[in-house]
Amino acid sequence: MSNPTAAIIIIGNEILSGRTQDVNVQFIATHLALLGVKLQEVRVVPDVPGRIIGTVNELRAAYDMVFTTGGIGPTHDDITSECIAAAFGVPWEAHEPSMKVLRDYLGPRMNAAQGRMATLPRGAVPIRNEVSIAPGFTMGNVHVMAGVPRIMQAMFLALEKDLPRGTPIAMRAVYGIGVMEGNIAAGLSEIQDRFADADLGSYPFQRDGSWGVAIVAKGTDTARLEAAIAEASAMIEGQGVSPIQGEPE
Amino acid sequence: MSNPTAAIIIIGNEILSGRTQDVNVQFIATHLALLGVKLQEVRVVPDVPGRIIGTVNELRAAYDMVFTTGGIGPTHDDITSECIAAAFGVPWEAHEPSMKVLRDYLGPRMNAAQGRMATLPRGAVPIRNEVSIAPGFTMGNVHVMAGVPRIMQAMFLALEKDLPRGTPIAMRAVYGIGVMEGNIAAGLSEIQDRFADADLGSYPFQRDGSWGVAIVAKGTDTARLEAAIAEASAMIEGQGVSPIQGEPE
Repeated sequence: MSNPTAAIIIIGNEILSGRTQDVNVQFIATHLALLGVKLQEVRVVPDVPGRIIGTVNELRAAYDMVFTTGGIGPTHDDITSECIAAAFGVPWEAHEPSMKVLRDYLGPRMNAAQGRMATLPRGAVPIRNEVSIAPGFTMGNVHVMAGVPRIMQAMFLALEKDLPRGTPIAMRAVYGIGVMEGNIAAGLSEIQDRFADADLGSYPFQRDGSWGVAIVAKGTDTARLEAAIAEASAMIEGQGVSPIQGEPE
Repeated sequence: MSNPTAAIIIIGNEILSGRTQDVNVQFIATHLALLGVKLQEVRVVPDVPGRIIGTVNELRAAYDMVFTTGGIGPTHDDITSECIAAAFGVPWEAHEPSMKVLRDYLGPRMNAAQGRMATLPRGAVPIRNEVSIAPGFTMGNVHVMAGVPRIMQAMFLALEKDLPRGTPIAMRAVYGIGVMEGNIAAGLSEIQDRFADADLGSYPFQRDGSWGVAIVAKGTDTARLEAAIAEASAMIEGQGVSPIQGEPE
Protein backbone atom coordinates (compact mmCIF):
# COMPACT_ATOMS: atom_id res chain seq x y z
CA MET A 1 0.00 0.00 0.00
CA SER A 2 1.41 3.38 -0.90
CA ASN A 3 1.37 6.30 1.49
CA PRO A 4 -0.77 9.35 0.72
CA THR A 5 0.95 12.72 1.17
CA ALA A 6 -0.09 15.77 3.16
CA ALA A 7 0.81 19.36 4.00
CA ILE A 8 -0.24 21.65 6.86
CA ILE A 9 -0.88 25.38 6.52
CA ILE A 10 -0.83 27.32 9.79
CA ILE A 11 -2.69 30.58 9.24
CA GLY A 12 -1.37 32.61 12.06
CA ASN A 13 0.00 36.08 12.63
CA GLU A 14 0.26 35.03 16.27
CA ILE A 15 2.83 32.34 15.40
CA LEU A 16 4.84 34.67 13.16
CA SER A 17 4.94 37.35 15.87
CA GLY A 18 6.27 34.85 18.42
CA ARG A 19 3.29 35.47 20.70
CA THR A 20 2.01 31.89 20.44
CA GLN A 21 3.88 28.59 20.47
CA ASP A 22 2.31 26.33 17.82
CA VAL A 23 1.38 22.89 19.09
CA ASN A 24 -0.97 21.87 16.28
CA VAL A 25 1.73 20.61 13.93
CA GLN A 26 2.94 17.95 16.34
CA PHE A 27 -0.60 16.71 17.03
CA ILE A 28 -1.51 16.45 13.36
CA ALA A 29 1.90 14.99 12.39
CA THR A 30 1.69 12.26 15.02
CA HIS A 31 -1.80 11.26 13.97
CA LEU A 32 -0.98 11.30 10.26
CA ALA A 33 1.98 8.96 10.86
CA LEU A 34 -0.38 6.47 12.53
CA LEU A 35 -2.73 6.72 9.54
CA GLY A 36 0.17 6.07 7.17
CA VAL A 37 -0.01 9.57 5.67
CA LYS A 38 3.35 11.21 4.87
CA LEU A 39 3.50 14.80 6.06
CA GLN A 40 5.72 16.48 3.46
CA GLU A 41 5.57 20.16 4.32
CA VAL A 42 4.34 22.73 6.82
CA ARG A 43 3.91 26.42 6.07
CA VAL A 44 3.08 29.23 8.44
CA VAL A 45 1.58 32.20 6.58
CA PRO A 46 0.18 35.54 7.78
CA ASP A 47 -3.51 36.52 7.78
CA VAL A 48 -3.23 38.04 4.29
CA PRO A 49 -5.76 36.89 1.66
CA GLY A 50 -3.35 36.63 -1.27
CA ARG A 51 -0.89 34.60 0.79
CA ILE A 52 -3.55 32.21 2.06
CA ILE A 53 -5.18 31.71 -1.34
CA GLY A 54 -1.87 31.21 -3.14
CA THR A 55 -0.53 28.78 -0.57
CA VAL A 56 -3.74 26.72 -0.50
CA ASN A 57 -3.79 26.43 -4.29
CA GLU A 58 -0.11 25.53 -4.50
CA LEU A 59 -0.26 22.85 -1.82
CA ARG A 60 -3.62 21.26 -2.69
CA ALA A 61 -2.22 20.62 -6.18
CA ALA A 62 1.04 19.19 -4.81
CA TYR A 63 -0.21 16.83 -2.07
CA ASP A 64 -3.04 14.35 -1.57
CA MET A 65 -4.46 16.33 1.32
CA VAL A 66 -3.97 19.69 3.04
CA PHE A 67 -4.87 20.67 6.60
CA THR A 68 -5.25 24.28 7.61
CA THR A 69 -5.48 25.61 11.16
CA GLY A 70 -6.61 29.05 12.27
CA GLY A 71 -8.74 31.92 11.08
CA ILE A 72 -12.26 30.47 11.20
CA GLY A 73 -13.68 32.36 14.19
CA PRO A 74 -16.09 35.31 14.14
CA THR A 75 -13.71 38.29 14.20
CA HIS A 76 -12.37 40.54 11.42
CA ASP A 77 -9.04 38.73 11.36
CA ASP A 78 -10.74 35.36 10.67
CA ILE A 79 -10.56 35.22 6.90
CA THR A 80 -9.66 31.61 6.14
CA SER A 81 -13.12 30.51 5.05
CA GLU A 82 -13.58 33.32 2.51
CA CYS A 83 -10.06 32.64 1.24
CA ILE A 84 -10.81 28.95 0.69
CA ALA A 85 -13.91 29.91 -1.33
CA ALA A 86 -11.74 32.26 -3.41
CA ALA A 87 -9.07 29.58 -3.85
CA PHE A 88 -11.68 27.17 -5.22
CA GLY A 89 -13.53 29.86 -7.19
CA VAL A 90 -16.88 29.19 -5.52
CA PRO A 91 -19.32 31.47 -3.65
CA TRP A 92 -19.04 31.87 0.11
CA GLU A 93 -22.56 31.46 1.46
CA ALA A 94 -24.68 30.51 4.44
CA HIS A 95 -24.56 26.76 5.07
CA GLU A 96 -28.10 26.25 6.34
CA PRO A 97 -27.63 23.01 8.33
CA SER A 98 -24.61 24.52 10.13
CA MET A 99 -26.48 27.79 10.62
CA LYS A 100 -29.29 25.88 12.34
CA VAL A 101 -26.93 23.95 14.61
CA LEU A 102 -25.17 27.17 15.61
CA ARG A 103 -28.45 29.02 16.18
CA ASP A 104 -29.75 26.18 18.35
CA TYR A 105 -26.56 26.40 20.40
CA LEU A 106 -26.18 30.18 20.68
CA GLY A 107 -29.87 30.97 20.83
CA PRO A 108 -31.25 34.47 20.28
CA ARG A 109 -27.88 36.03 21.12
CA MET A 110 -26.48 34.77 17.80
CA ASN A 111 -25.33 37.78 15.77
CA ALA A 112 -24.01 38.42 12.27
CA ALA A 113 -20.38 37.89 13.29
CA GLN A 114 -21.22 34.50 14.75
CA GLY A 115 -23.23 33.66 11.63
CA ARG A 116 -20.00 34.02 9.63
CA MET A 117 -18.84 30.80 11.31
CA ALA A 118 -21.62 28.90 9.51
CA THR A 119 -20.88 30.63 6.20
CA LEU A 120 -18.89 28.19 4.07
CA PRO A 121 -17.58 27.82 0.52
CA ARG A 122 -20.30 26.28 -1.68
CA GLY A 123 -19.82 22.51 -1.71
CA ALA A 124 -17.96 22.34 1.61
CA VAL A 125 -18.72 19.47 4.00
CA PRO A 126 -18.77 20.60 7.66
CA ILE A 127 -16.42 19.03 10.23
CA ARG A 128 -18.09 18.54 13.59
CA ASN A 129 -16.81 20.56 16.56
CA GLU A 130 -18.11 19.31 19.88
CA VAL A 131 -16.14 21.89 21.85
CA SER A 132 -17.51 25.19 20.55
CA ILE A 133 -20.01 23.95 17.90
CA ALA A 134 -18.95 26.27 15.03
CA PRO A 135 -17.77 23.78 12.38
CA GLY A 136 -14.60 23.28 10.41
CA PHE A 137 -15.07 22.03 6.87
CA THR A 138 -13.63 19.95 4.06
CA MET A 139 -13.47 21.46 0.58
CA GLY A 140 -12.04 19.07 -1.98
CA ASN A 141 -8.82 17.74 -0.45
CA VAL A 142 -8.48 20.70 1.96
CA HIS A 143 -9.49 20.24 5.60
CA VAL A 144 -10.07 23.55 7.35
CA MET A 145 -9.79 23.50 11.14
CA ALA A 146 -9.69 25.93 14.07
CA GLY A 147 -6.46 27.27 15.52
CA VAL A 148 -7.31 26.78 19.20
CA PRO A 149 -5.63 23.42 19.95
CA ARG A 150 -8.51 21.85 21.85
CA ILE A 151 -10.97 22.70 19.08
CA MET A 152 -8.56 21.69 16.31
CA GLN A 153 -8.02 18.32 17.99
CA ALA A 154 -11.77 17.69 18.25
CA MET A 155 -12.14 18.50 14.56
CA PHE A 156 -9.21 16.30 13.53
CA LEU A 157 -10.58 13.36 15.50
CA ALA A 158 -14.03 13.87 13.91
CA LEU A 159 -12.41 13.91 10.47
CA GLU A 160 -9.85 11.17 10.93
CA LYS A 161 -12.01 8.16 10.04
CA ASP A 162 -12.72 9.54 6.56
CA LEU A 163 -9.11 10.28 5.58
CA PRO A 164 -7.24 8.20 2.99
CA ARG A 165 -4.74 5.89 4.66
CA GLY A 166 -1.54 4.05 3.97
CA THR A 167 0.67 1.61 5.79
CA PRO A 168 1.27 3.17 9.23
CA ILE A 169 4.64 4.88 9.50
CA ALA A 170 6.35 3.47 12.59
CA MET A 171 9.35 4.71 14.54
CA ARG A 172 11.87 2.85 16.65
CA ALA A 173 14.61 4.56 18.61
CA VAL A 174 17.67 3.93 20.71
CA TYR A 175 19.44 6.45 22.92
CA GLY A 176 23.09 6.75 23.86
CA ILE A 177 23.87 9.10 26.74
CA GLY A 178 27.39 10.49 26.44
CA VAL A 179 27.88 9.30 22.86
CA MET A 180 29.42 11.93 20.59
CA GLU A 181 27.46 12.06 17.36
CA GLY A 182 30.62 12.53 15.31
CA ASN A 183 32.05 9.26 16.60
CA ILE A 184 29.16 7.18 15.31
CA ALA A 185 28.52 9.10 12.09
CA ALA A 186 30.51 6.77 9.82
CA GLY A 187 29.00 3.62 11.33
CA LEU A 188 25.49 5.03 11.16
CA SER A 189 25.95 5.91 7.51
CA GLU A 190 26.90 2.28 6.81
CA ILE A 191 23.77 1.05 8.60
CA GLN A 192 21.66 3.48 6.57
CA ASP A 193 23.22 2.07 3.38
CA ARG A 194 22.18 -1.45 4.37
CA PHE A 195 18.67 -0.34 5.43
CA ALA A 196 17.51 1.92 2.64
CA ASP A 197 13.88 1.24 3.69
CA ALA A 198 14.51 2.50 7.24
CA ASP A 199 14.91 6.26 7.28
CA LEU A 200 17.60 6.80 9.93
CA GLY A 201 17.95 10.08 11.79
CA SER A 202 20.47 11.12 14.42
CA TYR A 203 19.37 13.73 16.97
CA PRO A 204 21.62 15.13 19.66
CA PHE A 205 19.87 16.09 22.88
CA GLN A 206 20.72 17.28 26.35
CA ARG A 207 19.31 15.67 29.48
CA ASP A 208 20.27 16.38 33.08
CA GLY A 209 23.28 18.31 31.80
CA SER A 210 24.67 15.47 29.67
CA TRP A 211 24.64 15.31 25.90
CA GLY A 212 23.33 12.24 24.18
CA VAL A 213 22.23 11.05 20.77
CA ALA A 214 18.89 9.57 19.73
CA ILE A 215 19.01 7.28 16.72
CA VAL A 216 15.53 7.05 15.17
CA ALA A 217 14.46 4.64 12.42
CA LYS A 218 11.26 5.46 10.54
CA GLY A 219 9.42 3.39 7.96
CA THR A 220 6.57 1.02 7.28
CA ASP A 221 8.34 -2.33 7.95
CA THR A 222 8.71 -2.62 11.72
CA ALA A 223 10.91 -5.74 11.53
CA ARG A 224 13.40 -3.84 9.38
CA LEU A 225 13.26 -0.85 11.72
CA GLU A 226 14.02 -3.09 14.67
CA ALA A 227 16.91 -4.75 12.83
CA ALA A 228 18.39 -1.35 11.97
CA ILE A 229 18.01 -0.17 15.57
CA ALA A 230 19.65 -3.39 16.82
CA GLU A 231 22.70 -2.53 14.71
CA ALA A 232 22.68 1.04 15.97
CA SER A 233 22.50 -0.27 19.55
CA ALA A 234 25.54 -2.47 18.96
CA MET A 235 27.36 0.56 17.60
CA ILE A 236 26.51 2.56 20.73
CA GLU A 237 27.79 -0.32 22.89
CA GLY A 238 30.97 -0.18 20.83
CA GLN A 239 31.41 3.36 22.21
CA GLY A 240 31.39 1.94 25.74
CA VAL A 241 27.86 3.20 26.40
CA SER A 242 24.81 1.15 27.39
CA PRO A 243 22.13 1.82 24.78
CA ILE A 244 18.67 2.74 26.06
CA GLN A 245 15.97 1.16 23.95
CA GLY A 246 12.51 2.57 23.62
CA GLU A 247 9.88 4.38 21.72
CA PRO A 248 10.82 7.98 20.95
CA GLU A 249 10.23 10.04 24.08
CA MET B 1 12.31 53.33 9.04
CA SER B 2 10.92 50.44 7.04
CA ASN B 3 10.91 46.91 8.37
CA PRO B 4 13.09 44.27 6.71
CA THR B 5 11.37 40.94 6.00
CA ALA B 6 12.39 37.41 6.92
CA ALA B 7 11.48 33.75 6.53
CA ILE B 8 12.46 30.66 8.52
CA ILE B 9 13.13 27.23 7.01
CA ILE B 10 13.02 24.34 9.49
CA ILE B 11 14.89 21.44 7.94
CA GLY B 12 13.52 18.60 9.94
CA ASN B 13 12.14 15.14 9.30
CA GLU B 14 11.78 14.96 13.09
CA ILE B 15 9.23 17.80 13.06
CA LEU B 16 7.27 16.33 10.13
CA SER B 17 7.12 12.92 11.83
CA GLY B 18 5.72 14.46 15.02
CA ARG B 19 8.63 13.13 17.05
CA THR B 20 9.91 16.58 18.00
CA GLN B 21 8.04 19.73 19.05
CA ASP B 22 9.66 22.69 17.31
CA VAL B 23 10.54 25.54 19.66
CA ASN B 24 12.95 27.40 17.39
CA VAL B 25 10.31 29.38 15.49
CA GLN B 26 9.03 31.11 18.61
CA PHE B 27 12.54 32.05 19.76
CA ILE B 28 13.54 33.49 16.39
CA ALA B 29 10.15 35.19 15.86
CA THR B 30 10.28 36.91 19.25
CA HIS B 31 13.81 38.18 18.66
CA LEU B 32 13.07 39.34 15.11
CA ALA B 33 10.09 41.40 16.35
CA LEU B 34 12.40 43.18 18.81
CA LEU B 35 14.82 43.90 15.95
CA GLY B 36 11.99 45.29 13.86
CA VAL B 37 12.21 42.47 11.30
CA LYS B 38 8.88 41.20 9.94
CA LEU B 39 8.72 37.41 9.88
CA GLN B 40 6.57 36.67 6.84
CA GLU B 41 6.71 32.91 6.45
CA VAL B 42 7.90 29.68 8.01
CA ARG B 43 8.37 26.42 6.12
CA VAL B 44 9.16 22.99 7.48
CA VAL B 45 10.69 20.76 4.81
CA PRO B 46 12.08 17.21 4.89
CA ASP B 47 15.76 16.26 4.67
CA VAL B 48 15.59 15.95 0.87
CA PRO B 49 18.19 17.89 -1.18
CA GLY B 50 15.85 19.08 -3.93
CA ARG B 51 13.33 20.35 -1.40
CA ILE B 52 15.94 22.20 0.66
CA ILE B 53 17.66 23.76 -2.37
CA GLY B 54 14.39 24.82 -3.99
CA THR B 55 12.97 26.30 -0.80
CA VAL B 56 16.17 28.21 0.01
CA ASN B 57 16.32 29.70 -3.47
CA GLU B 58 12.64 30.65 -3.48
CA LEU B 59 12.71 32.32 -0.08
CA ARG B 60 16.07 34.08 -0.29
CA ALA B 61 14.76 35.83 -3.42
CA ALA B 62 11.47 36.74 -1.74
CA TYR B 63 12.64 38.09 1.64
CA ASP B 64 15.43 40.26 2.98
CA MET B 65 16.79 37.45 5.12
CA VAL B 66 16.29 33.72 5.63
CA PHE B 67 17.09 31.65 8.71
CA THR B 68 17.46 27.89 8.52
CA THR B 69 17.61 25.49 11.45
CA GLY B 70 18.72 21.88 11.41
CA GLY B 71 20.88 19.53 9.42
CA ILE B 72 24.40 20.86 10.09
CA GLY B 73 25.73 18.09 12.33
CA PRO B 74 28.19 15.33 11.43
CA THR B 75 25.82 12.49 10.44
CA HIS B 76 24.58 11.24 7.05
CA ASP B 77 21.22 13.00 7.50
CA ASP B 78 22.92 16.40 7.97
CA ILE B 79 22.83 17.75 4.44
CA THR B 80 21.93 21.42 4.86
CA SER B 81 25.43 22.80 4.30
CA GLU B 82 25.96 20.96 0.98
CA CYS B 83 22.47 22.03 -0.09
CA ILE B 84 23.21 25.70 0.61
CA ALA B 85 26.36 25.42 -1.53
CA ALA B 86 24.27 23.88 -4.31
CA ALA B 87 21.59 26.57 -3.93
CA PHE B 88 24.23 29.28 -4.39
CA GLY B 89 26.14 27.36 -7.07
CA VAL B 90 29.45 27.44 -5.19
CA PRO B 91 31.87 24.68 -4.11
CA TRP B 92 31.47 23.09 -0.67
CA GLU B 93 34.96 23.03 0.81
CA ALA B 94 37.01 22.94 4.01
CA HIS B 95 36.86 26.30 5.81
CA GLU B 96 40.35 26.34 7.27
CA PRO B 97 39.82 28.78 10.19
CA SER B 98 36.76 26.79 11.32
CA MET B 99 38.62 23.52 10.78
CA LYS B 100 41.37 24.76 13.09
CA VAL B 101 38.94 25.87 15.81
CA LEU B 102 37.17 22.53 15.67
CA ARG B 103 40.45 20.57 15.68
CA ASP B 104 41.69 22.55 18.69
CA TYR B 105 38.43 21.70 20.49
CA LEU B 106 38.05 18.05 19.51
CA GLY B 107 41.75 17.23 19.50
CA PRO B 108 43.20 14.13 17.89
CA ARG B 109 39.83 12.35 18.07
CA MET B 110 38.48 14.62 15.31
CA ASN B 111 37.38 12.42 12.40
CA ALA B 112 36.17 12.94 8.85
CA ALA B 113 32.50 13.14 9.90
CA GLN B 114 33.29 15.88 12.38
CA GLY B 115 35.38 17.67 9.76
CA ARG B 116 32.20 17.99 7.65
CA MET B 117 30.98 20.49 10.26
CA ALA B 118 33.80 22.85 9.25
CA THR B 119 33.17 22.29 5.52
CA LEU B 120 31.22 25.30 4.25
CA PRO B 121 30.00 26.80 0.99
CA ARG B 122 32.75 28.93 -0.52
CA GLY B 123 32.27 32.53 0.66
CA ALA B 124 30.32 31.62 3.80
CA VAL B 125 31.00 33.57 7.01
CA PRO B 126 30.97 31.32 10.10
CA ILE B 127 28.54 31.98 12.96
CA ARG B 128 30.13 31.36 16.34
CA ASN B 129 28.77 28.49 18.46
CA GLU B 130 29.98 28.59 22.05
CA VAL B 131 27.97 25.52 23.03
CA SER B 132 29.40 22.83 20.76
CA ILE B 133 31.96 24.85 18.73
CA ALA B 134 30.97 23.58 15.25
CA PRO B 135 29.86 26.79 13.50
CA GLY B 136 26.73 27.89 11.70
CA PHE B 137 27.29 30.24 8.79
CA THR B 138 25.92 33.12 6.77
CA MET B 139 25.85 32.80 2.99
CA GLY B 140 24.48 35.90 1.29
CA ASN B 141 21.21 36.67 3.10
CA VAL B 142 20.82 33.10 4.40
CA HIS B 143 21.74 32.36 8.03
CA VAL B 144 22.30 28.65 8.62
CA MET B 145 21.90 27.48 12.22
CA ALA B 146 21.74 24.25 14.19
CA GLY B 147 18.47 22.51 15.06
CA VAL B 148 19.23 21.79 18.73
CA PRO B 149 17.53 24.74 20.47
CA ARG B 150 20.34 25.62 22.85
CA ILE B 151 22.89 25.69 20.02
CA MET B 152 20.52 27.54 17.67
CA GLN B 153 19.95 30.19 20.34
CA ALA B 154 23.68 30.69 20.87
CA MET B 155 24.15 31.10 17.13
CA PHE B 156 21.25 33.54 16.80
CA LEU B 157 22.56 35.67 19.64
CA ALA B 158 26.04 35.68 18.07
CA LEU B 159 24.50 36.76 14.76
CA GLU B 160 21.92 39.23 16.00
CA LYS B 161 24.10 42.36 16.18
CA ASP B 162 24.90 42.14 12.46
CA LEU B 163 21.33 41.78 11.21
CA PRO B 164 19.51 44.60 9.38
CA ARG B 165 16.95 46.25 11.66
CA GLY B 166 13.75 48.23 11.51
CA THR B 167 11.50 49.98 13.98
CA PRO B 168 10.83 47.38 16.71
CA ILE B 169 7.46 45.68 16.32
CA ALA B 170 5.67 46.01 19.65
CA MET B 171 2.62 44.24 21.01
CA ARG B 172 0.04 45.32 23.54
CA ALA B 173 -2.73 43.08 24.77
CA VAL B 174 -5.86 43.01 26.89
CA TYR B 175 -7.68 39.92 28.11
CA GLY B 176 -11.35 39.36 28.82
CA ILE B 177 -12.19 36.22 30.76
CA GLY B 178 -15.70 35.01 29.93
CA VAL B 179 -16.10 37.30 26.92
CA MET B 180 -17.57 35.56 23.87
CA GLU B 181 -15.52 36.47 20.83
CA GLY B 182 -18.65 36.70 18.67
CA ASN B 183 -20.11 39.39 20.91
CA ILE B 184 -17.19 41.76 20.44
CA ALA B 185 -16.47 40.97 16.78
CA ALA B 186 -18.40 43.91 15.33
CA GLY B 187 -16.94 46.41 17.82
CA LEU B 188 -13.44 45.11 17.30
CA SER B 189 -13.78 45.45 13.55
CA GLU B 190 -14.73 49.11 14.04
CA ILE B 191 -11.66 49.67 16.21
CA GLN B 192 -9.48 48.03 13.55
CA ASP B 193 -10.96 50.40 10.95
CA ARG B 194 -9.96 53.41 13.05
CA PHE B 195 -6.47 52.00 13.80
CA ALA B 196 -5.23 50.77 10.44
CA ASP B 197 -1.63 51.05 11.75
CA ALA B 198 -2.34 48.69 14.70
CA ASP B 199 -2.72 45.13 13.50
CA LEU B 200 -5.48 43.78 15.77
CA GLY B 201 -5.87 40.08 16.45
CA SER B 202 -8.47 38.26 18.53
CA TYR B 203 -7.42 34.97 20.13
CA PRO B 204 -9.75 32.79 22.17
CA PHE B 205 -8.06 30.83 24.95
CA GLN B 206 -9.01 28.59 27.81
CA ARG B 207 -7.70 29.11 31.34
CA ASP B 208 -8.76 27.26 34.48
CA GLY B 209 -11.71 25.86 32.57
CA SER B 210 -13.06 29.26 31.43
CA TRP B 211 -12.93 30.62 27.92
CA GLY B 212 -11.58 34.07 27.32
CA VAL B 213 -10.39 36.28 24.51
CA ALA B 214 -7.04 38.01 24.10
CA ILE B 215 -7.07 41.15 21.98
CA VAL B 216 -3.58 41.85 20.69
CA ALA B 217 -2.42 44.99 18.90
CA LYS B 218 0.82 44.82 16.95
CA GLY B 219 2.72 47.60 15.22
CA THR B 220 5.58 50.05 15.41
CA ASP B 221 3.78 53.01 17.08
CA THR B 222 3.32 52.08 20.74
CA ALA B 223 1.12 55.11 21.52
CA ARG B 224 -1.31 54.02 18.81
CA LEU B 225 -1.22 50.42 20.06
CA GLU B 226 -2.07 51.62 23.56
CA ALA B 227 -4.92 53.78 22.27
CA ALA B 228 -6.37 50.84 20.32
CA ILE B 229 -6.08 48.57 23.36
CA ALA B 230 -7.77 51.22 25.53
CA GLU B 231 -10.75 51.10 23.19
CA ALA B 232 -10.75 47.30 23.22
CA SER B 233 -10.68 47.41 27.04
CA ALA B 234 -13.71 49.69 27.10
CA MET B 235 -15.49 47.27 24.80
CA ILE B 236 -14.71 44.37 27.13
CA GLU B 237 -16.05 46.40 30.06
CA GLY B 238 -19.18 46.94 27.99
CA GLN B 239 -19.63 43.17 28.14
CA GLY B 240 -19.71 43.37 31.93
CA VAL B 241 -16.21 41.93 32.25
CA SER B 242 -13.17 43.53 33.93
CA PRO B 243 -10.42 43.73 31.30
CA ILE B 244 -6.99 42.42 32.30
CA GLN B 245 -4.24 44.59 30.87
CA GLY B 246 -0.79 43.35 30.21
CA GLU B 247 1.91 42.23 27.90
CA PRO B 248 1.02 39.09 25.99
CA GLU B 249 1.51 36.11 28.30
